[in-house]
Amino acid sequence: MSYTSFKEKMYEVNLISAMNSLLSWDMEVNMPAHSDKGFRADQMAFISGLHFQKSTDKELVALVDTLSQSKDLSETEAKNIKIVKKDLEDMLKFTKEFVEKEAKLTSEAHNIWVEARKKSDFKVFEKSLESIVALLREKCEILGYENHPYNALLNQYEEGSNVADLDKLFADVKVRLKPLIEAVKAKQTQTTQFLNQKFDGTKQMELVADILNHLKFDANLYKINLSTHPFCTHFHPTDIRITTRINENDLMSSIWSGIHEMGHGMYEMGLNKDNVGLPISTSTSLGIHESQSRFWENNIGRSRAFISSIFPLMQKHFPLEFAKATVEDLFNEINFVSPSLIRTESDELTYHYHIMIRYEVEKKLIEGSLAVSDVVAYWNQCYKEYLGLDVPNDAQGALQDIHWSMGGLGYFPTYSQGSFYASQWYFAITKNHNIPDLIANQSFEKILAWHTEHIHQYGRLYTSNELCEKATGSKLDFTFFENYIKEKFELN
Amino acid sequence: MSYTSFKEKMYEVNLISAMNSLLSWDMEVNMPAHSDKGFRADQMAFISGLHFQKSTDKELVALVDTLSQSKDLSETEAKNIKIVKKDLEDMLKFTKEFVEKEAKLTSEAHNIWVEARKKSDFKVFEKSLESIVALLREKCEILGYENHPYNALLNQYEEGSNVADLDKLFADVKVRLKPLIEAVKAKQTQTTQFLNQKFDGTKQMELVADILNHLKFDANLYKINLSTHPFCTHFHPTDIRITTRINENDLMSSIWSGIHEMGHGMYEMGLNKDNVGLPISTSTSLGIHESQSRFWENNIGRSRAFISSIFPLMQKHFPLEFAKATVEDLFNEINFVSPSLIRTESDELTYHYHIMIRYEVEKKLIEGSLAVSDVVAYWNQCYKEYLGLDVPNDAQGALQDIHWSMGGLGYFPTYSQGSFYASQWYFAITKNHNIPDLIANQSFEKILAWHTEHIHQYGRLYTSNELCEKATGSKLDFTFFENYIKEKFELN
Repeated sequence: MSYTSFKEKMYEVNLISAMNSLLSWDMEVNMPAHSDKGFRADQMAFISGLHFQKSTDKELVALVDTLSQSKDLSETEAKNIKIVKKDLEDMLKFTKEFVEKEAKLTSEAHNIWVEARKKSDFKVFEKSLESIVALLREKCEILGYENHPYNALLNQYEEGSNVADLDKLFADVKVRLKPLIEAVKAKQTQTTQFLNQKFDGTKQMELVADILNHLKFDANLYKINLSTHPFCTHFHPTDIRITTRINENDLMSSIWSGIHEMGHGMYEMGLNKDNVGLPISTSTSLGIHESQSRFWENNIGRSRAFISSIFPLMQKHFPLEFAKATVEDLFNEINFVSPSLIRTESDELTYHYHIMIRYEVEKKLIEGSLAVSDVVAYWNQCYKEYLGLDVPNDAQGALQDIHWSMGGLGYFPTYSQGSFYASQWYFAITKNHNIPDLIANQSFEKILAWHTEHIHQYGRLYTSNELCEKATGSKLDFTFFENYIKEKFELN
Repeated sequence: MSYTSFKEKMYEVNLISAMNSLLSWDMEVNMPAHSDKGFRADQMAFISGLHFQKSTDKELVALVDTLSQSKDLSETEAKNIKIVKKDLEDMLKFTKEFVEKEAKLTSEAHNIWVEARKKSDFKVFEKSLESIVALLREKCEILGYENHPYNALLNQYEEGSNVADLDKLFADVKVRLKPLIEAVKAKQTQTTQFLNQKFDGTKQMELVADILNHLKFDANLYKINLSTHPFCTHFHPTDIRITTRINENDLMSSIWSGIHEMGHGMYEMGLNKDNVGLPISTSTSLGIHESQSRFWENNIGRSRAFISSIFPLMQKHFPLEFAKATVEDLFNEINFVSPSLIRTESDELTYHYHIMIRYEVEKKLIEGSLAVSDVVAYWNQCYKEYLGLDVPNDAQGALQDIHWSMGGLGYFPTYSQGSFYASQWYFAITKNHNIPDLIANQSFEKILAWHTEHIHQYGRLYTSNELCEKATGSKLDFTFFENYIKEKFELN
C-alpha cells in the first residue's frame, strides 16, 4: 500500500514538472514577440517552487525512508526507491528560495540571451551570465564535490562524470581524432555544391515531416514546431514536442535538427508509461539521451544508406534543386570534413573540438580562472588554435548556444560522451543486423527495438556505465567511435 | 501595505489560473492525436484544485475581510476588494473535491465530445453529458438561487441574468425579430455564388492574418492557431491566443471566426496590465465579452464598408475566385438571410433562434423536464419548428457546439445579449463618428478607443447593466439591434 502512495505522490510531482515543461516549451515556440516575459518568468518560478515543495514534501520523505527499509518490494521497486532517496538527499540541500531564484534568473537570462544573440553582442548577455556563474558556484558548494567544483555540475547531468576523466577523454580526442581528421581530409576531394542553394522554408518543413515519417516516428504522438534553438521536450511518453529551425540557405540544418530531436523524442516515447514520475520512466542521463539523438542524426542520418533512402523525398520536394544530384554527391557533400564556426552545423569529427572548447570555458568559469568578461576573447582564441578559424562576431561565437542562458553549465561534455556511446550502440546492433540493409528496407523499427530493449525500458534504473556494459558487454570506449569513422570513411 | 499583500496574493492566483488556460489551450491547439488525454485531465484537475486552494486561502480571506472595513482605500481599491469578497463567499460554498471533480469531468467530457462529433453520434457523448448535468444541478443547489435553478448558472456568466428576463427577451426576439427577417427576405434576391467555391486552406490562413493586421490587431501580442471550435484565451493582457478553423468549402467561416475571436482578444488586450488578477483586470461578463467579439464580427465585419475595405485583400489571395466579383455581390451574398443548421455559420438575424433553442434545452435539462437521452429529438423538433429545417445528423445538430462538453450551460444566452449590446455600442460610437468613414480610412484604432475607454479599462468594476448605462446613457434595449438591422438592410 505504501508503495502505491509513493507512486501517487511521484505522479503528482510529475504533473507539476510536466507543467513547467509546457510553460517553457510555449515560451520558446508560441509566445508572441512583445508578450510580458516577466509574467511567464514568475509563473515558472512559482511552479518550480511548488515542484520543489512537493518533491521534498515531509510525507514523501518519510514514505521513502520507510520503503527503503522494506523487504517486500520487488527488485525494480526497490531500485526506484533507492534512486528517489538519493535525489531527495541532494534536493534537500537547497532552500525553496534558491530553487525559485535559479528558475527566475535563468528564465530572464534566456530572454536576454535571445536579444544579445539578435544584436550579436555578448556584452548584452554578460551581466546575466555573471549572475548565473555566481549562482552555479554557490550551487557547487551546496551540492558538495571532490577535487573540482565543476564536478558537482557535471554530476547533475551524468552521474560519475568528473574533470579528471574528461580531461583524459578530451586529451584522447586530441591525440586520436586528429589523425582521423587528417586521413579523411587527405582522401576527400572538392565536392559538388548542390546544398549551396536556396531552399524554400515551407518546403523544408514539409520535407522534415516526411523524413520523420519515413523514419516511422509516430506523428500521432508528437508535434514539431520552430524555435530559435532546436530542442525536444515531453509532457508524457505519449506527448512529445520537438522543434527545428529553418535557414533557407542551409537545407540540412533543419533536417539534422529534426532527426536529432526525433532521437531524443524516440527515447522519451520509449519510457515506461505506467510509472511516470518514477526513475524507471526517466531518462538515464544526458549522455545517454544524446547517444539517442546523435545515433539517429549521425550514425543513421549521415550514412550513405540513409541518404540513399531519403533521396527520393529530397527530390520530390526540391526537384529543380536536386535535378542533377546523385546520392554519392550528397553523401560526400554532407560528410565533407572541414572546421566551422557553428557547433550544430559542424561535421561529425571536428564537432568534438567545439565541445572541448566549451568544456574548457565552463571549467575555468566555475573554478574562477576565467572572468565572464574574458569569455569572448578566450573563445575566439580557442577557435583560432583548435579549428584555425577567426570568429567574426559574437552571434557566430560565444552566443551561439542556448545552454548557458539556461544555467546549463556541465551539459556540453555529454554531447561528446553521447556521440561515443552512439557508436558503441552501432556496433552492438551490427552483431545481429546489417544496418545499411535495415535502412534500405525502411526497417527502422528494428533499429528502434534495440534501443527500446537495451536502453529505453530501464529509464534511470541503471547508470550510464552500467547500462553500457549491460547493453554492449564493455565500458564506454573511444575505439568504437574511431572504428565507426574508419568504416564510414573507408580509412582502412 | 495590506492592499499590497492582497495584490500580491491575487497575482499569484492569476499565475495559476493562467497556467490552467495554457494547459487547456495547448490541449485544443497542439496536443498530438494519440497523446494520453487522461494525464492532461489530471494536470488540469490538479491545477484547478490548487487554484481553488490559493484563491480561498485563509490569509487571503482574512486580508480581504480586514480591507473591506478599511477607510484608507481609494474608490477603485475598495471596489476591487468588494468584488473579491463576493467571489470568495461564492467560492467557499464549494469543496476542493467538487472543484477538482468538475475540472476532471469536463476535461474528459471534452475529449469524448470530440470523438462523438467525429462519429456524429450523440449516444457516444450522452453519458458524459448526463454526468455534467447532474453535477451542474448539484452546483445550482450549492450556489443557491431564486425562482429557478438555472438562474444560478446564468449568474456565473452574467451577473443578474435570470430565466424571467430571458424568457421575456426571447419572447421579444420572437415577436420583433420575425417581421425583420420577413422584411429582409422579401427584399433580397438570389445572390451570386462567389463564395460557393473551393478556397485553399493555407491561403485562407494567410488572408485571415492579413485581415487581422488590416484591423490593426497587434501581431506582436497574439498568436493564431487552428482548433476544432474557434476560441480566444489569454495568459496575460500582452499574451493573447486566438484560434480559427478552416473549411475549404467555406471561406467566410475562417474569416468570421478570426474576427470574432480577435474581438475577444482586443478586450483582453485592453485590460489593466498593472493589476492582473484583480477585478479591474478581468472582463465584466460573458455578455460584455460577446459584445466585443460580435461587434467586430457583425457590426463592423459584415458591413458594406468593411467588405469594401478588405475586398483587395480577398482578391490578392484569391485572384481567380474573385475575378468577377464586386463588393456589392459579396455584401449581398454574405448577408443573405436564410435559416441554417450551424449556429456559427448563420446570418445575423436567424442566429438568435439558435441561441433560443439552446436556452430552452438547457433550462429544461437543469429543471429536469428534459432527459439527456431526449435532447436530440427535442433539438431536432425545435429546428423544424423555428427554422423549418430537418437536422440530418448529430454533428450538424446537438453535437455542433463545444460548450456543454465544458460544462458551460448558462453560457449561450450571453451570445444574444452580446449581440444586442454590440448594436447599442454601435449607436453610441455613431454619436461622434461616422463608422463607415472610419472603416474606409482604416481608422480602426478610433473604434477600438471607444471600447477601451468605455468598457475595457473598467474590467469588472461595473456590472454589465451599470457599464451599459454609463457608456450609452440607457439600459440594454433591443431597439438598438432592431434599428441597426433596419439601417443595414435599408428597411425604412
